[in-house]
Amino acid sequence: MRRIGILTSGGDAPGMNACIRAAVRTALANGLEIVGIRRGYAGLLEGDTVPLDRTAIRNTIHLGGTILETSRSPEFMTREGRARAAEVIRQAGLDGLILIGGEGTFHGASLLAAEWGTTLVGVPGSIDNDVYGTDSCIGFDTAANCALSAIDRIRDTARSHDRLFFVEVMGHHTGFLALESGIAGGAEELVIPEEPLSSAELSDRLKEGFKIGKKSAIVVVAEGKKPGKSFRIADEVRKFLNYESRVVVLGHLQRGGPPTVRDRVLGSVLGVAAVTALQDGRSGCMAGEVKGEIAYTPFDDTWQKKKPLDADVMRIFSLLSE
Amino acid sequence: MRRIGILTSGGDAPGMNACIRAAVRTALANGLEIVGIRRGYAGLLEGDTVPLDRTAIRNTIHLGGTILETSRSPEFMTREGRARAAEVIRQAGLDGLILIGGEGTFHGASLLAAEWGTTLVGVPGSIDNDVYGTDSCIGFDTAANCALSAIDRIRDTARSHDRLFFVEVMGHHTGFLALESGIAGGAEELVIPEEPLSSAELSDRLKEGFKIGKKSAIVVVAEGKKPGKSFRIADEVRKFLNYESRVVVLGHLQRGGPPTVRDRVLGSVLGVAAVTALQDGRSGCMAGEVKGEIAYTPFDDTWQKKKPLDADVMRIFSLLSE
Amino acid sequence: MRRIGILTSGGDAPGMNACIRAAVRTALANGLEIVGIRRGYAGLLEGDTVPLDRTAIRNTIHLGGTILETSRSPEFMTREGRARAAEVIRQAGLDGLILIGGEGTFHGASLLAAEWGTTLVGVPGSIDNDVYGTDSCIGFDTAANCALSAIDRIRDTARSHDRLFFVEVMGHHTGFLALESGIAGGAEELVIPEEPLSSAELSDRLKEGFKIGKKSAIVVVAEGKKPGKSFRIADEVRKFLNYESRVVVLGHLQRGGPPTVRDRVLGSVLGVAAVTALQDGRSGCMAGEVKGEIAYTPFDDTWQKKKPLDADVMRIFSLLSE
Amino acid sequence: MRRIGILTSGGDAPGMNACIRAAVRTALANGLEIVGIRRGYAGLLEGDTVPLDRTAIRNTIHLGGTILETSRSPEFMTREGRARAAEVIRQAGLDGLILIGGEGTFHGASLLAAEWGTTLVGVPGSIDNDVYGTDSCIGFDTAANCALSAIDRIRDTARSHDRLFFVEVMGHHTGFLALESGIAGGAEELVIPEEPLSSAELSDRLKEGFKIGKKSAIVVVAEGKKPGKSFRIADEVRKFLNYESRVVVLGHLQRGGPPTVRDRVLGSVLGVAAVTALQDGRSGCMAGEVKGEIAYTPFDDTWQKKKPLDADVMRIFSLLSE
Repeated sequence: MRRIGILTSGGDAPGMNACIRAAVRTALANGLEIVGIRRGYAGLLEGDTVPLDRTAIRNTIHLGGTILETSRSPEFMTREGRARAAEVIRQAGLDGLILIGGEGTFHGASLLAAEWGTTLVGVPGSIDNDVYGTDSCIGFDTAANCALSAIDRIRDTARSHDRLFFVEVMGHHTGFLALESGIAGGAEELVIPEEPLSSAELSDRLKEGFKIGKKSAIVVVAEGKKPGKSFRIADEVRKFLNYESRVVVLGHLQRGGPPTVRDRVLGSVLGVAAVTALQDGRSGCMAGEVKGEIAYTPFDDTWQKKKPLDADVMRIFSLLSE
Repeated sequence: MRRIGILTSGGDAPGMNACIRAAVRTALANGLEIVGIRRGYAGLLEGDTVPLDRTAIRNTIHLGGTILETSRSPEFMTREGRARAAEVIRQAGLDGLILIGGEGTFHGASLLAAEWGTTLVGVPGSIDNDVYGTDSCIGFDTAANCALSAIDRIRDTARSHDRLFFVEVMGHHTGFLALESGIAGGAEELVIPEEPLSSAELSDRLKEGFKIGKKSAIVVVAEGKKPGKSFRIADEVRKFLNYESRVVVLGHLQRGGPPTVRDRVLGSVLGVAAVTALQDGRSGCMAGEVKGEIAYTPFDDTWQKKKPLDADVMRIFSLLSE
Repeated sequence: MRRIGILTSGGDAPGMNACIRAAVRTALANGLEIVGIRRGYAGLLEGDTVPLDRTAIRNTIHLGGTILETSRSPEFMTREGRARAAEVIRQAGLDGLILIGGEGTFHGASLLAAEWGTTLVGVPGSIDNDVYGTDSCIGFDTAANCALSAIDRIRDTARSHDRLFFVEVMGHHTGFLALESGIAGGAEELVIPEEPLSSAELSDRLKEGFKIGKKSAIVVVAEGKKPGKSFRIADEVRKFLNYESRVVVLGHLQRGGPPTVRDRVLGSVLGVAAVTALQDGRSGCMAGEVKGEIAYTPFDDTWQKKKPLDADVMRIFSLLSE
Repeated sequence: MRRIGILTSGGDAPGMNACIRAAVRTALANGLEIVGIRRGYAGLLEGDTVPLDRTAIRNTIHLGGTILETSRSPEFMTREGRARAAEVIRQAGLDGLILIGGEGTFHGASLLAAEWGTTLVGVPGSIDNDVYGTDSCIGFDTAANCALSAIDRIRDTARSHDRLFFVEVMGHHTGFLALESGIAGGAEELVIPEEPLSSAELSDRLKEGFKIGKKSAIVVVAEGKKPGKSFRIADEVRKFLNYESRVVVLGHLQRGGPPTVRDRVLGSVLGVAAVTALQDGRSGCMAGEVKGEIAYTPFDDTWQKKKPLDADVMRIFSLLSE
């Protein structure tokens, strides 16, 4: 191990820069060269690299987004694409590659590793927190706090108007963001993929709350496959309840902003762990944090296994939102 | 003048509580009784009042929304409604009434004053800043900073992905919020009611920017009559540009949150001015701030005259966004 | 178990209200009565109680501080004081008491339990994070993010001026806040109780950084016994380095503000756990969270055992701050 | 006018980057070359220049501090220093120079202009807001909101503990920051240079507040010549009142952070105005904003005339803080 690469792929997440910075400093401290690949797998296919040294990562730890930029690359998901990627890696003289990303990133990585034997270590970055093998993904805590701050603001106006609000947060097929921000924001109801709820049921529950004296309510909705589903739900609930409602779709607002302490520390810890893993001869796995300890999970598990919501936290939401 | 009332009406705006607090303290300091009318004109029609003293307004200056709650009242816009309102005011023994609100509020107020001779003084509260007779409405500065903070966050992710973003801010028939947050956020383009722009024209302008090396762009859109128009614009632009884009609709997010210094000071100054105006025998007018001085504007002007965007600021946006 | 009490004691910490709210809702859901004791042990000695129901805790989850107020009570640390406390608890008909606080609170609690057999369960609330038996105390995450936000702001001006900054954060005899905010803020050096460092050594290390091209640096200092020690350190370092420096003492700024997601969720989880513990017949222990699981620790351990900094995180700080 | 320079001098202030960006874009749009001088007058004396083009100022509008860095230069205050400065300006081929700074900057500028006839236009940047000839200096609004946010946080803990807090904000010989943040924060008392107040008087006023039921109070103190005076005042008040108090010294925290809408817009407007002024043949003056209009003030007035606090706002503080 003499020279390694690092890239960010998929959706950007706050804390990725802390991870890049940690990997660079660790590599340099251990006598390794390290180069950045720009724009994820797309940039990898084009050999779009940039040398990384102390100067390149100075004053980046507080920045949202990723200084290496990112992308989604359909081409990399083809056999030919990955052949090219392997060739680029070989020509660039990289003995190993660190991939910061989510499910799609690791799916691609497992194929690349299987087909070409490339030495790869992953780090989970995903505001959805939907990667198996780590309690928390880089970016999740920042996104949850961003959603919470939105809920806090909306409650001001909800209370002033006796209104029903739908706050749509991210969450493709998981409700982590909705659940955490919903508990913390004191939301009344959740609509998440893990617990399907019809608009009729939702309306019944809201009605119960109004009966015991509530005059405003906030429903946190995980956006699912495509942003905007809250508009439909709001329309349906309006038919059942005849209560004025408003919809806020947070969308990409949740991706940006300065990362929280937790995301910067997690990014730093995992950046160090990824370099160490490469030096220890690991490959084909992701470095995550489980119950406070570094844990390595095979790529295939990270995207094939489903990370469940914490059942206790779900129970607590029900108990406290009543 | 022995006993006065105060209410908030229309959309809530951060800084309204600072105004209520200032009015209460000024009234008490001047030996007046003051009562709050809850839920705007709707509450007025129901005689829903609450006594206001030092304790009622303690620790409220930092709160978003309005402690008196607010509403929109179709009934008040009828002649019968206003007759009832006049009767309630008489029965409650109110010698004058302070109304914190926007265009609709003052439209109603001018009718009430004309029909029943009620003593009324207004204070402009509107995050859209669309009230004639004041440079800035209570709530505008907070909403603009909220929109700016969203633009800052989005730029993180826009740059990480080389993407085009549409950020939809409030603004029914004015572009104040879009213009101020757009300049401050370094947005590339504006879509505002004052300067209609076709999607073809918008696409051309964006293309120019990409030609000189920009890889991401932010377009700030004033929502107009109904939230969501950005989705349509984004679709149209995509046809012209073939560039991936995302939409964020800030909606009611912009209403809440702790008011800024400026909105709390403005709310305080105008709250004092409104009580003073009543004591000075004024009525049928709104207390605003024009070029740093208190100015009183007849109710009819406040909603019939159009407050234009500052032409210099518009010119500066064009100059700086190139 | 039919009727329980709850109080907050010692320094206030953001998230305490989420804990109170969770305890109240859990108690009510389980058919228990619950009363609040105001102003900690001082209020307990005076029988200063307030009934708690759903209304009392509505819209409090986002508030910093504690709605029950808090205090430090020298009298409670006397045998006579505790005798009175036991008597008040008996007269108020409380079958158990939940104490949200830190080391001092649990020291007192262990004496009260030993002397009078009172049924007591604790919950750790401390921005210093210095309580043994929980990975994180309520309030720590919020305080760390507050300190981080200050460091981010200061870096702007440090870089603009080529200056050395000392940022003094809380931390009586532990460096948790300094370590976490220091890693996350990309600080150059730490001064913490766990690793004594002379001003000469500190100056040498800073000199190394300047040699490799740094022009500004941030040193995070744990305040120790009394705020202000940074002024002395800055003076000493100035003699060694002849470099202009500035000091910021965050002090109680770190206590307030809306709690983060993590502190609200932790507060909620532990509030539920505390009520459950009382119902399960537990006493004389604190409910904490260790590696993601609820854990109960005897009162005496909570304040007698020293919670060490994470050695890995310390190592990472050294690695990344170079 | 073919080629101009720009520098930032004195204390950095949020919004300076918006001003630099606006000046650069305006210069380029008007066919002028523009170079940056780094580190204020100190860099000027060393000829430390950097070419400025569109790329140099891209993505800087949201940054606190100043990308050109700044300094205080004793040497420039000597005749010899200024002779050297004039020579550097001549050699660099600069037909005019824009200076963003405060009183000291303009004092120096007036001497340079008088001695060497250099073409100079100033822009007021000062978080203290102590420059005559502009209602608001760049950076003031951001600093005031930073101080306000600190006061809001502190009130959480002040109320939880029934405590007296001293919050020391910046303000060398003016109380603008203290007054604005004090009104907006609902502070009980002010200690500002414009209205000397003995600790005995201050204690008497606080006592009045406690008599009518207040249990906590916040005193905002302008730091004056040297940070830390609040510690002394707190000690003195403690003797009179026997009430537990705490001190927070915000210091340089107030300088950093992303600028507010107002500071970015003001910076942009004045950056455009400064370039236009040079092209219009103006020199020896500062471009400010007075009652919403651009106004040019001779350098000597900017630092010799005293900008008074708004008497109405002072009166309102007294009225509302009671």
